[in-house]
Amino acid sequence: MTPVQETVVLDGHIIDSLILPKVLDTILALGGTFDLTEVEIGTRREETSHTRIVVRAPGSEQLAAIVRAIQPHGALVEREADCTVEPAPRDGVLPEQFHATSHLPTQIRLNGRWLDVRGIEMDVAIRVSPERASADTVPMADVRKGDLIVTGREGVRVFPLGRPQERDVFSFMEAQVSSERPHGYVIADVARRMQALREATRRGDPASRVLLTGGPAIVHAGGRDALAWLVDAGFIQVLFCGNALAAHDLEAELYGTSLGYRLAAGHSVPHGHEHHLRTINRIRAIGSIEQAVARGVVKGGIMAACVRRGVQVVMAGSIRDDGPLPGVITDSMAAQQAMRTALSGVALALLVASTLHAVATGNLLPATVPTVCVDLNPSVPTKLADRGTFQAVGVVMDAASFLRELARELGWRE
Amino acid sequence: MTPVQETVVLDGHIIDSLILPKVLDTILALGGTFDLTEVEIGTRREETSHTRIVVRAPGSEQLAAIVRAIQPHGALVEREADCTVEPAPRDGVLPEQFHATSHLPTQIRLNGRWLDVRGIEMDVAIRVSPERASADTVPMADVRKGDLIVTGREGVRVFPLGRPQERDVFSFMEAQVSSERPHGYVIADVARRMQALREATRRGDPASRVLLTGGPAIVHAGGRDALAWLVDAGFIQVLFCGNALAAHDLEAELYGTSLGYRLAAGHSVPHGHEHHLRTINRIRAIGSIEQAVARGVVKGGIMAACVRRGVQVVMAGSIRDDGPLPGVITDSMAAQQAMRTALSGVALALLVASTLHAVATGNLLPATVPTVCVDLNPSVPTKLADRGTFQAVGVVMDAASFLRELARELGWRE
Amino acid sequence: MTPVQETVVLDGHIIDSLILPKVLDTILALGGTFDLTEVEIGTRREETSHTRIVVRAPGSEQLAAIVRAIQPHGALVEREADCTVEPAPRDGVLPEQFHATSHLPTQIRLNGRWLDVRGIEMDVAIRVSPERASADTVPMADVRKGDLIVTGREGVRVFPLGRPQERDVFSFMEAQVSSERPHGYVIADVARRMQALREATRRGDPASRVLLTGGPAIVHAGGRDALAWLVDAGFIQVLFCGNALAAHDLEAELYGTSLGYRLAAGHSVPHGHEHHLRTINRIRAIGSIEQAVARGVVKGGIMAACVRRGVQVVMAGSIRDDGPLPGVITDSMAAQQAMRTALSGVALALLVASTLHAVATGNLLPATVPTVCVDLNPSVPTKLADRGTFQAVGVVMDAASFLRELARELGWRE
Amino acid sequence: MTPVQETVVLDGHIIDSLILPKVLDTILALGGTFDLTEVEIGTRREETSHTRIVVRAPGSEQLAAIVRAIQPHGALVEREADCTVEPAPRDGVLPEQFHATSHLPTQIRLNGRWLDVRGIEMDVAIRVSPERASADTVPMADVRKGDLIVTGREGVRVFPLGRPQERDVFSFMEAQVSSERPHGYVIADVARRMQALREATRRGDPASRVLLTGGPAIVHAGGRDALAWLVDAGFIQVLFCGNALAAHDLEAELYGTSLGYRLAAGHSVPHGHEHHLRTINRIRAIGSIEQAVARGVVKGGIMAACVRRGVQVVMAGSIRDDGPLPGVITDSMAAQQAMRTALSGVALALLVASTLHAVATGNLLPATVPTVCVDLNPSVPTKLADRGTFQAVGVVMDAASFLRELARELGWRE
Repeated sequence: MTPVQETVVLDGHIIDSLILPKVLDTILALGGTFDLTEVEIGTRREETSHTRIVVRAPGSEQLAAIVRAIQPHGALVEREADCTVEPAPRDGVLPEQFHATSHLPTQIRLNGRWLDVRGIEMDVAIRVSPERASADTVPMADVRKGDLIVTGREGVRVFPLGRPQERDVFSFMEAQVSSERPHGYVIADVARRMQALREATRRGDPASRVLLTGGPAIVHAGGRDALAWLVDAGFIQVLFCGNALAAHDLEAELYGTSLGYRLAAGHSVPHGHEHHLRTINRIRAIGSIEQAVARGVVKGGIMAACVRRGVQVVMAGSIRDDGPLPGVITDSMAAQQAMRTALSGVALALLVASTLHAVATGNLLPATVPTVCVDLNPSVPTKLADRGTFQAVGVVMDAASFLRELARELGWRE
Repeated sequence: MTPVQETVVLDGHIIDSLILPKVLDTILALGGTFDLTEVEIGTRREETSHTRIVVRAPGSEQLAAIVRAIQPHGALVEREADCTVEPAPRDGVLPEQFHATSHLPTQIRLNGRWLDVRGIEMDVAIRVSPERASADTVPMADVRKGDLIVTGREGVRVFPLGRPQERDVFSFMEAQVSSERPHGYVIADVARRMQALREATRRGDPASRVLLTGGPAIVHAGGRDALAWLVDAGFIQVLFCGNALAAHDLEAELYGTSLGYRLAAGHSVPHGHEHHLRTINRIRAIGSIEQAVARGVVKGGIMAACVRRGVQVVMAGSIRDDGPLPGVITDSMAAQQAMRTALSGVALALLVASTLHAVATGNLLPATVPTVCVDLNPSVPTKLADRGTFQAVGVVMDAASFLRELARELGWRE
Repeated sequence: MTPVQETVVLDGHIIDSLILPKVLDTILALGGTFDLTEVEIGTRREETSHTRIVVRAPGSEQLAAIVRAIQPHGALVEREADCTVEPAPRDGVLPEQFHATSHLPTQIRLNGRWLDVRGIEMDVAIRVSPERASADTVPMADVRKGDLIVTGREGVRVFPLGRPQERDVFSFMEAQVSSERPHGYVIADVARRMQALREATRRGDPASRVLLTGGPAIVHAGGRDALAWLVDAGFIQVLFCGNALAAHDLEAELYGTSLGYRLAAGHSVPHGHEHHLRTINRIRAIGSIEQAVARGVVKGGIMAACVRRGVQVVMAGSIRDDGPLPGVITDSMAAQQAMRTALSGVALALLVASTLHAVATGNLLPATVPTVCVDLNPSVPTKLADRGTFQAVGVVMDAASFLRELARELGWRE
Repeated sequence: MTPVQETVVLDGHIIDSLILPKVLDTILALGGTFDLTEVEIGTRREETSHTRIVVRAPGSEQLAAIVRAIQPHGALVEREADCTVEPAPRDGVLPEQFHATSHLPTQIRLNGRWLDVRGIEMDVAIRVSPERASADTVPMADVRKGDLIVTGREGVRVFPLGRPQERDVFSFMEAQVSSERPHGYVIADVARRMQALREATRRGDPASRVLLTGGPAIVHAGGRDALAWLVDAGFIQVLFCGNALAAHDLEAELYGTSLGYRLAAGHSVPHGHEHHLRTINRIRAIGSIEQAVARGVVKGGIMAACVRRGVQVVMAGSIRDDGPLPGVITDSMAAQQAMRTALSGVALALLVASTLHAVATGNLLPATVPTVCVDLNPSVPTKLADRGTFQAVGVVMDAASFLRELARELGWRE
């Protein structure tokens, strides 16, 4: 093998993103060496940095492996080239070498020009328009035979996240999960953002929506009133949940219980476990949650507030559902698509007490959306980070306490 | 209000099931009084006991409340009557007063005769055949307009579980969840049952099937070889899982990684997170897992073993799935129905490292099926018990260690 | 072997304590049979029940085993006899057959009379006064050579707990641990008790003290202000903690941080991890926490409130301590003894966010003291129950949220 | 304020330790700017790097704050000066400005020469010998009036950890805690190290000792035989534990139970909870564990193996102890000191199933000692990292499974 080399450039917020040493370390770890031929490091926070690195390896295979390994960090092979595309061989099947996306901002090079990839989310493919003038993402199941799909890594670049301007909890950029950190300040920062986003929404900014993804523990643990208030006060525009959150919220309205447990008195009620079934059956008889609210059968609670405030609700079905309630999307791919659509304009995501829905939402969220993951169990935010949603700030507390403190911070008076 | 009274009888294994004092306590707690007019307690384990209790209350409403509260324990109002039925008002909607089942053995009284309810599972309704000669369960979504549905509680009786004959871990009958109990003996007892059930299956007994419900942590944590061996050795007849377990098992076969983490060397691989996507895409291109095994693309691992051994696999989709793999049932109600059907003849259920699938399976299992729930997190078995699957024995350990110890106990040599 | 028999009696609240069927089941499980020769079951809650049971076994060894097994439930062999005593063979060593206590109310029979055992706690011995007129408990390490120690089980009886008169969360008498139960009502019930106990304390009742056992997460997570308020408002009379809770409380006062993490702004402070060391050093230089408060160096927070209100504080040392602070009892046996002494008159125990201190406190508490165990991790209350403190009600939430909600319920306004 | 500047140098493994960008980011975050006047980055792994950075700030206070913040990363103010020292004002009290150590390798400058600080551990002070020719660490409680203690930060430098030569699990240098990573390879790497260290120990290398810090769950969960084998086979030289591990190990020997739970048959034994008390009393009567082994009362298990193999055992007392056993050090400061002494020559630390002992051990370990932390609960390794023991590799599995797999890997045959 003869030694070979390649020149790569690294641009952007390479200091605060810790990218440079990771890249250099990767080169060394994979048996290469390097020269830093240019190092221009921005001396103010808003300036970007620029480095040019000559990477050497004992043979071309190793060199290719190194380049492959450093490209996701944004290292760009200097010999710039257009991305390569291949037609999908069949409906629902991508070309073997399809480029799999991350959830970071991404561009591809077509006809010598860099284009933004629209609708970025992790683990999907990039589809180029027939006239090769635009690019968007496409999930595997939605690809159609003949669609032009980007393959390989050439001509694709991703941008590390810059540090946000706000000096708040979201600016640390690394998932922080600890039950031993004070959470009061996280709640204060989230509240501040929600206040600002409500202002923006009221001014008509379509990109200021707040998403809450929630599990039924919100109701069990006593957070129903606080969440209903947050919806009613206009702080939430999108709700992702399953059959259970909605059913227990409605059960609380119709029977005063949650999972058969009396919310006020704190003990189980004879046959109380049937209440959620009777609730679901009743709403099925009425036809829809909206109808139940319209007819005054359901007056308070989370779902009623969502109906009143026109919140965009996606209820996704699962195999543990009873019923389900009218409006639950039982097909998981259809539900995923509905969530994808509803994410448009979301500028803050609160993932509260649901591992399944939190991970599913994290899969669909661009890395640029500030995200909070709240769970009693510290392994939920860890799981989220393990699956790529590194931007999520973990808060280890119960759903009810979180929502109550958040609502109080925003003006709720019980 | 004038004091009123009603005579109820309690029959069966009321001593080892702790039913009697619960019933008496409930009567007192709800403001009633009682006389024990007959107390015949079996003096050997196999004998049943019999008591007759006169329940008194200050008024008929309270008396009705008491009777309602003690009936789920098997207390039978002496004035026996047929159950009442009502036609379902609409497709997918039950009569308002429908009787909601538990997962205990249940009978209804029709034309003066007690009939077993077939296909018992919790939280569904009881449908009586048009000629009123048989009864089976029906989930809310499957009921059709005009179906005769049992309502109220009269003429319905449930049987508390007797203690099983085997003096093993399943005979304690109360969910035991503790990280501080030795688990070696649980594994030994489970192994003993699996050995016996394999014998029975080989003899042609259709009611000796073993179900494993599993999550992807089985593969991540290093339990793949052990589970594949268990399947190959004929110890497992039914597998419930999601897209993830199958995808990571196949990823391990095609790439040697799981979630991009190299299983052998223990570090992440550049772009390894793409492996499961490429795996899914490849199987989609081939058409099915069965085809991939038939063509020799996939030779080892869990899914290959299942294909070879004719294991009945139900893969249920979820909103966090990539792909999904061919064979995944994306509609949650259809997946639930497929699970329900596959449970026929299951005599032992192992729920390993998946909260969602464990709870979903627990919802469908009769209480008479011995069940083990294995998870690192002690709150998973607790959650299962909270949702009614009280028969599950909790084992707090990681999926891989459990499966490896179990396989070793049954003869696996790495 | 010739069949043998023995008559035992069971008295007391055998219905609501579920004792009778447990006893009968134990007899059967150990190979015996029985006749219920008398069954008088109280028909009102306040009445006690009485049963006489003839126990038969194939041989005298088995009979002895059965009697041994049912005695802890309160089954009393009818042939009543005085307890047996033996002198301790050496300082710190008990007679081989010493009777080990439970934490339930216990009596021994001396000279034909039943005497209450004073200072009951679990896992200690019973010492009889030289004149055999009284009995108290003695830990193994404190026994002196020649002390008269009760041995065996004869002439010892324990009383199952009756259900308390208050119909609140403590009246369910079984450890309830679930992250899926509403905790608002537990907090409301605890608050109600604290209110009543404060009244009683103000009236001069010495047996109305409230104990809080706490870990440092109270400070980390943001519960310091609420706890300081509870102390200041007179709701707490005894505090058990370690070096860490006190050090972080004082660090918060002197530096505004906890574990170096700024409590207000929510980020770590350069060199902040040194703050607790500097805090401890400073208090050591001053001489004591009391002095630091007296001199005005420490004005706010938990420890200052304790000093001001004369709360009885026991700070127990551990091997992970830095410093430690003046006042920390570094000898674990001395600390245990100080805790034991301070428990006198405690009528409510709150164990918050400390496994070690919670278990240690649970070991010393009589079963008659209503106890709440609060932890993010559901396995902490389970561990407590596994070690015998079955009376503890488990609340799965973070320490700060618990204390803040509790304080609000009692009138705290931030 | 006039702008001021200071030149600092960063030397060492600044690439693979990710130090450089952290330093630059810190400068910017605290309002400073910088020029990189020299950047010599080693181009092979074993080469060190060198950078010179001119730091500018608007005023001298801010500059001092920046320098303070970057010094722990090893940034050295170029104007080199000797460290400052001050005498301790009193026994047990440090000078107000004492320098608090990290657990990284550290040097101080005295008379123009850099000296290694001996016995480095986190959160202690540095004491200079009277003749100012050497320096060692001293815990706060042990300082004596007049001892010369290093103050401030000048003349003190710490060295970031270089990446170890072995390319194994310990070379990733960041605490990895995930229940979703395969643990087979961690166990394999640990076994490889233990094999090599046993070789070295046999060759007489005093710095090749292996420490196991363990909790009682080792015995409860079924890991006793495996650990006893590891000790007997010469793989472990130091054992840190509490009263409970030893008591339950001895209980298993004398009664076949652990916490009263029969280890073989998996159910609780009547009065089994007394076994550990009787065990402790019996050993107290005999006088010591060593005596009990010498007399043949105790033959198998962990403690017997330790006695036979001359393992250095430190048993530290705690407030939840019964007894305690002879040999338990009840004073926490004395126990800490015994642990400190026993750590000499430890080259691998296994912290298994004990939060308290793991954190205490972590506090005393230099960062250069490879460390594994094993617990069912992922928050234990997180807690360890939060307290500074960042070098610990987290393994989320139960103690018994870990020890059994480890022993098997090293040749154990059950």
